Amino acid sequence: MRMTPFGKLLDPMEARRRLLSVARPVSRKEELPLPEGLGRVVAVTVRSPEAIPAFRRASWDGYALRSRETKGAADLAPARFRLVGELHAEEGFPRPLRPGEAVAVATGAPLPRGADAVAIFEDTRSEDGVLEVFHPVEPGRAVAERGEDIRRGEVLVRTGELLTPARIGSLGAVGERTVEVFGRVRVALLPNGNELVPPDRTPGPGQIREFNNLTLGSFIRGLGGEATALPPAPDDPREIERRIRDALEGHDMVWVTGGSSVGERDFLPRVLPRVGRMLFHGLSIRPGKPTLAAVAGGKIVLGLPGHPTSCLSNAFWLLVPLLERVERRREPILRERTVRLASPYGPTAPGFTSVLPLRLENGWGHPTYRGSAAITSLVGAGAFALLPGGKPRLARGRPIKVWELPPPVG
Amino acid sequence: MRMTPFGKLLDPMEARRRLLSVARPVSRKEELPLPEGLGRVVAVTVRSPEAIPAFRRASWDGYALRSRETKGAADLAPARFRLVGELHAEEGFPRPLRPGEAVAVATGAPLPRGADAVAIFEDTRSEDGVLEVFHPVEPGRAVAERGEDIRRGEVLVRTGELLTPARIGSLGAVGERTVEVFGRVRVALLPNGNELVPPDRTPGPGQIREFNNLTLGSFIRGLGGEATALPPAPDDPREIERRIRDALEGHDMVWVTGGSSVGERDFLPRVLPRVGRMLFHGLSIRPGKPTLAAVAGGKIVLGLPGHPTSCLSNAFWLLVPLLERVERRREPILRERTVRLASPYGPTAPGFTSVLPLRLENGWGHPTYRGSAAITSLVGAGAFALLPGGKPRLARGRPIKVWELPPPVG
Repeated sequence: MRMTPFGKLLDPMEARRRLLSVARPVSRKEELPLPEGLGRVVAVTVRSPEAIPAFRRASWDGYALRSRETKGAADLAPARFRLVGELHAEEGFPRPLRPGEAVAVATGAPLPRGADAVAIFEDTRSEDGVLEVFHPVEPGRAVAERGEDIRRGEVLVRTGELLTPARIGSLGAVGERTVEVFGRVRVALLPNGNELVPPDRTPGPGQIREFNNLTLGSFIRGLGGEATALPPAPDDPREIERRIRDALEGHDMVWVTGGSSVGERDFLPRVLPRVGRMLFHGLSIRPGKPTLAAVAGGKIVLGLPGHPTSCLSNAFWLLVPLLERVERRREPILRERTVRLASPYGPTAPGFTSVLPLRLENGWGHPTYRGSAAITSLVGAGAFALLPGGKPRLARGRPIKVWELPPPVG
Repeated sequence: MRMTPFGKLLDPMEARRRLLSVARPVSRKEELPLPEGLGRVVAVTVRSPEAIPAFRRASWDGYALRSRETKGAADLAPARFRLVGELHAEEGFPRPLRPGEAVAVATGAPLPRGADAVAIFEDTRSEDGVLEVFHPVEPGRAVAERGEDIRRGEVLVRTGELLTPARIGSLGAVGERTVEVFGRVRVALLPNGNELVPPDRTPGPGQIREFNNLTLGSFIRGLGGEATALPPAPDDPREIERRIRDALEGHDMVWVTGGSSVGERDFLPRVLPRVGRMLFHGLSIRPGKPTLAAVAGGKIVLGLPGHPTSCLSNAFWLLVPLLERVERRREPILRERTVRLASPYGPTAPGFTSVLPLRLENGWGHPTYRGSAAITSLVGAGAFALLPGGKPRLARGRPIKVWELPPPVG
């Protein structure tokens, strides 16, 4: 069995920089009905075509009046007004308010001309058409000015922002019915290995079920992308090359799992240079060393370790930022925070960055790692730390910086 | 205009407890193909029907051998073996290993009988069928034992857990093809108010676009539920009652927006007691005071403020836990953490809990609040704090406890 050692291993952060610098972001756009935009990435900065509120209105239930006429009002010396009408939210008052007059207004009702404030219900008493106000009311009190919330021309959403309920609501408020978003990133997933059978088949002797497609596919979909799970490719360099070339048609990236190391049957290191320009092979990270990448016409072709944990671990620190870039998000997917390490860890291997998956709970990070081949190592891991190599054992309680994955991927 | 004051306001946390104690969790289940289960709530605890690995195998590329035969090996005194074969991942070795023999194995290959360890490639040299091992190899080194990752009968996912990529992968690994999940919670959204027009219509004088349906609907969908956006109901108690009763058929909850306060046209406080048993009306929270709830046959009917910010603000602290309960999730949706307040806030109103929406960035929380009527107050808010009433102004830099919302809802 022929094996060649890895050459010099590349620093994982440098590998990430290389990937991000050459990966071509999606340029496809689509226009969606507003409600369907949830979680999508905005493709065009939208400015409000109108002012909200469109008219000066009451922002509380109460009585519209001239604020200066409440000067000096007190519990024992209330300001008195004639009640000359009542306005519900959809109604206007037909004439300007005269001195000494007040109009009952419901929240949202247009303010009568002449009125400049609303005495809120709780601060008043009314009986037989007479309103008593027990405190001075400031000008503008309980009034929403035209454009106070959204000015005409104000930016509502920016290119690259994720559409949240609040953003969708603000677009709807100004009458937008559709929203332009970037197309979902399309990733082809190609497992490689003679020993692999699709997960719905029963493995024979020496065979194992392929399920990196399931894991990575869910990961990609959970981050807004589309994944095409291809059937496993055999250990045949021509066939692998043909399958990668096919997959590059119609996809923005191809992620191959397995065959990424330096063994005789690891064909990817020989195939990738034929498909595109090599970016790296071999990273100084654990797990995840046997990772390689090439770029072909702005499309990234990745070779990932077949070990499920190594593969998903790479997804955390390497593929999330890659998806973020290709999806054109301007808001980071990974959220940085500091937690306390719940059990001792280390020392870390010299020369290698360690990826430490963690389950977060009440400010503590519980390591979940059970070895690079373990399927369950990352189950329940909602965050990870990257620990530099050659560092002494970290004690329980030690604060460490982690990156949190959003649900449903973390 | 007739108005009646609120009675005694209920503490918001008590209101939440009441809601959670009576809301009936969904009992519908559905069986989905595994890849479609992403982000859904597991309805049945699943134990592994088999052991993974199914056979003892190499977990690194290297040479399978008897570890005791490497005792005392050193750079200048390597242990020597006869190479008697090579195994790829899918192949087995036909006979037991004899003393002094080694077999080249690729990662994943079944370990030959008699071998108990793998000398990893980097620690060896091979030439002309002779293998030299330069360090002693421990028993079990680079070997994955049968069942080491997943024992037969081991729990893979528990009822109430969210299906993440790692959990989907582990189910796929043991041959599960489908997964049983709880049905999505079904919420009917009913706006109430004569002044409301659907968002795709141009408002006339005094009218405004209804968009709480858009915001809340996105919120519900972003948290795994289904929302039915109903057209606005007019200010007519019989019609509102009829619409609520209709909506209760086929939905798990009905959330009414608008008409929840104490004004003449606020009909909900009169309608809800006819529909179900009242839980509360009026909360000591700002924004969000005019909130009421009833329960009808385990189904919650909520009256929410029509003010967009009050409405969405309630969604944060009241409706997220409610959805979490009804969806039967065992993992909390809101993630607690401590951040520093990026600008001074307060003092808080005596007797009222304040909801403070925040945009989080690098461990700082930036208040986004712009008033209860402001559509844009919660745009960009990915978290919120609940501040007790009657507290002095909080200085910039002060650590505060916040709850973070998951994307895409935060």
